Amino acid sequence: MSDAIRITSVTVTPVAFQDPPLLNAVGVHEPYALRAVLEVHTDQGFLGLGETYADSGHLRRLRAAADALTGLDVHHLGRARAAVARALDGDTGSDGHGLTGMITTSSTVDRVFSPFEVACLDIQGQAAGRPVSDLLGGAVRDRVPFSAYLFYKWAAHPGAEPDGWGEALDADGIVAQARRMVGTYGFTALKLKGGVLPPDQEIDTVHALRRAFPGLPLRIDPNCAWSVETSLRVARELDGVIEYLEDPTPGQDGMAAVAREASMPLATNMCVVSFEEIAPAVARGAVRIVLSDHHYWGGLRRSGLLAGICDTFGLGLSMHSNSHLGISLAAMTHLAAATPNLTYACDTHWPWKTEDVIAPEVLTFRDGAVDVPTRPGLGVELDRDALARLHEQYLACGLRDRDDTGYMRRVDPAYEKRVPRW
Amino acid sequence: MSDAIRITSVTVTPVAFQDPPLLNAVGVHEPYALRAVLEVHTDQGFLGLGETYADSGHLRRLRAAADALTGLDVHHLGRARAAVARALDGDTGSDGHGLTGMITTSSTVDRVFSPFEVACLDIQGQAAGRPVSDLLGGAVRDRVPFSAYLFYKWAAHPGAEPDGWGEALDADGIVAQARRMVGTYGFTALKLKGGVLPPDQEIDTVHALRRAFPGLPLRIDPNCAWSVETSLRVARELDGVIEYLEDPTPGQDGMAAVAREASMPLATNMCVVSFEEIAPAVARGAVRIVLSDHHYWGGLRRSGLLAGICDTFGLGLSMHSNSHLGISLAAMTHLAAATPNLTYACDTHWPWKTEDVIAPEVLTFRDGAVDVPTRPGLGVELDRDALARLHEQYLACGLRDRDDTGYMRRVDPAYEKRVPRW
Repeated sequence: MSDAIRITSVTVTPVAFQDPPLLNAVGVHEPYALRAVLEVHTDQGFLGLGETYADSGHLRRLRAAADALTGLDVHHLGRARAAVARALDGDTGSDGHGLTGMITTSSTVDRVFSPFEVACLDIQGQAAGRPVSDLLGGAVRDRVPFSAYLFYKWAAHPGAEPDGWGEALDADGIVAQARRMVGTYGFTALKLKGGVLPPDQEIDTVHALRRAFPGLPLRIDPNCAWSVETSLRVARELDGVIEYLEDPTPGQDGMAAVAREASMPLATNMCVVSFEEIAPAVARGAVRIVLSDHHYWGGLRRSGLLAGICDTFGLGLSMHSNSHLGISLAAMTHLAAATPNLTYACDTHWPWKTEDVIAPEVLTFRDGAVDVPTRPGLGVELDRDALARLHEQYLACGLRDRDDTGYMRRVDPAYEKRVPRW
Repeated sequence: MSDAIRITSVTVTPVAFQDPPLLNAVGVHEPYALRAVLEVHTDQGFLGLGETYADSGHLRRLRAAADALTGLDVHHLGRARAAVARALDGDTGSDGHGLTGMITTSSTVDRVFSPFEVACLDIQGQAAGRPVSDLLGGAVRDRVPFSAYLFYKWAAHPGAEPDGWGEALDADGIVAQARRMVGTYGFTALKLKGGVLPPDQEIDTVHALRRAFPGLPLRIDPNCAWSVETSLRVARELDGVIEYLEDPTPGQDGMAAVAREASMPLATNMCVVSFEEIAPAVARGAVRIVLSDHHYWGGLRRSGLLAGICDTFGLGLSMHSNSHLGISLAAMTHLAAATPNLTYACDTHWPWKTEDVIAPEVLTFRDGAVDVPTRPGLGVELDRDALARLHEQYLACGLRDRDDTGYMRRVDPAYEKRVPRW
């Protein structure tokens, strides 16, 4: 019988990293994105890393969960998840999700448990001398393709110097952004964050991307900014142009209405974001592709479950991203590598960040893909100076909850959040 | 980066072990049950064990798969399954399933892959110093409850000495069998294999069991011996008496028709035996409980997927058994321990066998449950003398394919297989 590897304590460190003014359907990214870095310490000296949202409600729940996990074996993930559920004790409201406020979900346990699970798998992998992908069934690919995530954006945050990417408020701006991003990272798929400009302008942008990149799969994600009618009009205009249409309209019923007539598959990371939403979506035929995201699907093993469910029910699988750092990219890469039916290039906000908490050069893009780390565990290491600096930045920046809409309203008091908008 | 653990060869040894004349809906157990023992050898000296059916078609496929797996890392289960699929190259017919010929399924890849996967997990566990349950998310219970599996039976195989259990061809015989089995093993749930006697007699048996064991959950499994009408009549007679009714009638449509009117949940290991049968069953409302079985659901990890699917779609989960030896019991126990929503006592034929291939006393029943092994890997070891003896028995017994119906017809030439019979 081998010794357990028991959790002795968990350090939760909120950090803030600079984020450009990326526009979306409910506002604009604030000057800093918030993340929480988890360090899970054990009685055998292993240190496991996890990364998640850092909104204040989520931080409160993370700390409650951390206390409940002390003493558990890092291999006992089923027991750990149950302990987290008990620790939350009904504190499962919809605040502090770190998303954009557009997702309503009951899967708070999964969202809180996720970074602990990732850290436990990091430790399991270190102890066994295996990369995390090996704990998930083993990599079926050595490299994981990601997509270029294109955003309409301002040249700069109000009152700040322009960032390196410049303004992109029309088709030409997005094509220029795409050229630079593809040129730098080698991406082989393009995703446009839509829901920002009137639909006709976004259709024009997609057509411009199609002309500029005739061989690359394209997607557009307006984050439910469109009515069913508008969605169907866009779907007709983009017939044969995009590989999937992501969350054109709110709700499973609305999505199902669009799905019945649209020629391309619909994808979602908004109307199916928890296990309990899968069965209704299947029954309605609401979507044909689910975007997984281990940060809210309960970690890497439960994201594997989601993948298996999609495979079983004839749904495609892609991967969603929020603004994230390198611990998350490592976890996403291990998961994607070990998921046979993840056949779409994954989303990532990676190119938009200029700071990180991990030692550099473990995760690098080549031809739009990341080599799956082969070192034991996640394969990434904390840069403690960087962690301290980004934590200081968190303390100094004053942001405590993501609020794209509030930030936009501070810039443009007339701005209103409307879902759908068009 | 740690070294791979590569498969160097696989030994597939068919064995035969003595089996009593247990009656079922399509005939009677032959004097020997067949199993195949897999030994997966690796370049680092680890030996992994698996156990599966040994019908001739299945043995042929196992050997094809074994060749295809040489050189693969035991952690690369996704790649291994794909290699098995390629190796079968269309040899996915319905022969040689080692079940009772009542199951038609397209999941040959999963059935062939399963024992290799178990053996690879055995090796992974040994290498990591962890029990297999830890590779499946960790045990959520220390002991796994099984049910007493009661059979109508003859006193002896024709021409042979009576076995120790004696005849059980009516309610009194089954109650006596149950008393002895519960007395010896401490089972806390009872399952009656039905479909043998006319339904009224089996209803009487269930009522007799209820009177004799007022506190124990009861189930009956007639293996589709009944029409929808008969199933509904039995369901009315057993209202409030059984915890679930297992496979009363053939096909998902038939089961759905029974499910709409029966008061108790319907369970199945016949109309949902592969991943592609899940979605239609959900759409039809055919069953409320699925009996998992890692031997045909593709191993322990894919059985975990089945469990997650059941949890997601509001289905209960139990566990099916065929006649098996100790390697399988160990695998079943690790799996059940790590499956939070496996809330029913698992089936096992364990009490019916008198021989095994593993060193004794690792797996023992106490209060109807088996302690989850805590040693690295599966936690069982081959008894090589026993393995050689049971292989000799396989060679000598002449049986090459399970044929309950043919055996019954040799005893009773007038016997006919009819599904449904009543």
